Amino acid sequence: MFASRPVVHPLEVAAPAHPVQQPAPGVLMKDLPGMPGTPGGLGLRVLQLLFAAISLAVMSSTADFASVSAFCYLITTTVLQCVWSLTVAIVDIYALLVKRCLRNRRAVTLFSIGDGITWLVSLSGACAAAGITVLIDADLIMCSENPCASFQTAVAMGFMCCFSLLPSFLLNFYSIASSHG
Amino acid sequence: MFASRPVVHPLEVAAPAHPVQQPAPGVLMKDLPGMPGTPGGLGLRVLQLLFAAISLAVMSSTADFASVSAFCYLITTTVLQCVWSLTVAIVDIYALLVKRCLRNRRAVTLFSIGDGITWLVSLSGACAAAGITVLIDADLIMCSENPCASFQTAVAMGFMCCFSLLPSFLLNFYSIASSHG
Repeated sequence: MFASRPVVHPLEVAAPAHPVQQPAPGVLMKDLPGMPGTPGGLGLRVLQLLFAAISLAVMSSTADFASVSAFCYLITTTVLQCVWSLTVAIVDIYALLVKRCLRNRRAVTLFSIGDGITWLVSLSGACAAAGITVLIDADLIMCSENPCASFQTAVAMGFMCCFSLLPSFLLNFYSIASSHG
Repeated sequence: MFASRPVVHPLEVAAPAHPVQQPAPGVLMKDLPGMPGTPGGLGLRVLQLLFAAISLAVMSSTADFASVSAFCYLITTTVLQCVWSLTVAIVDIYALLVKRCLRNRRAVTLFSIGDGITWLVSLSGACAAAGITVLIDADLIMCSENPCASFQTAVAMGFMCCFSLLPSFLLNFYSIASSHG
């Protein structure tokens, strides 16, 4: 059976002129979820604060943390992390409440540098404490005399804090770099 | 004395049309020193290789590194660092010899991911070993029984290796991000 086949001829119509949106000077173009001043960014800050606070509380509750320098360093880094995340979270809440855009170059550069330094310090603290915890737990097998579970929990929370800080830092850094491109 | 002062009238001549150089598709625009395929990049790789090799040699020469997990981890990370830096250095030397440009998007993304992972692993190894070294040295004061100087040298070289890797990673990451802007 032969049926007639319709042939479609595309019409060549000029596309409507696309209005080019120029960003205001000093304002970054990219608006990514998780950046400062967005609900995603605030969520990341709350997560960081939570993990750092749990790590700090668990490590401080052990009796003999002061005899090991790495554990004292972990406590210092979690305090720093709490202060930084709380500060940025307050700025985020303010920006969300008054619907103010935080994505100008200076603010994002400041957040990026702060995030980078805090991340580096937190990661080094968690790694150093993890080295000691593994030494006590696996190498010396002294868990009967030490609160190994508390040490492990504090170290794990320290690492979780680092992992939740990484997206904030990478997004801010990426945003600065792409605004220079 | 009054002398005649010549008055210069600038001629309004149209500036010659500036030829806009469009980069070839897939090739990144920015050419920064220290990027793969440049002498600066090769220098950074050689530095990383040197620091990692010294750290590996010093830590391996100590008698009882195998009894501490963190020291074994440091050795693993320095081996990984040596392999990665040597590979990229060979690619750099090849690119410099045949004058081939390595700054296409795929190569830079690959180098950036590799640098990021190697940096993270090296930093964690150096921090964990630093925690143990400080524990032996300052907390337990057992340097008379342990080769503390060797441990400290290995840790310091591990950190130097991380610091020399950071510019490579940041430059590559920055280059990718700015090419998306």
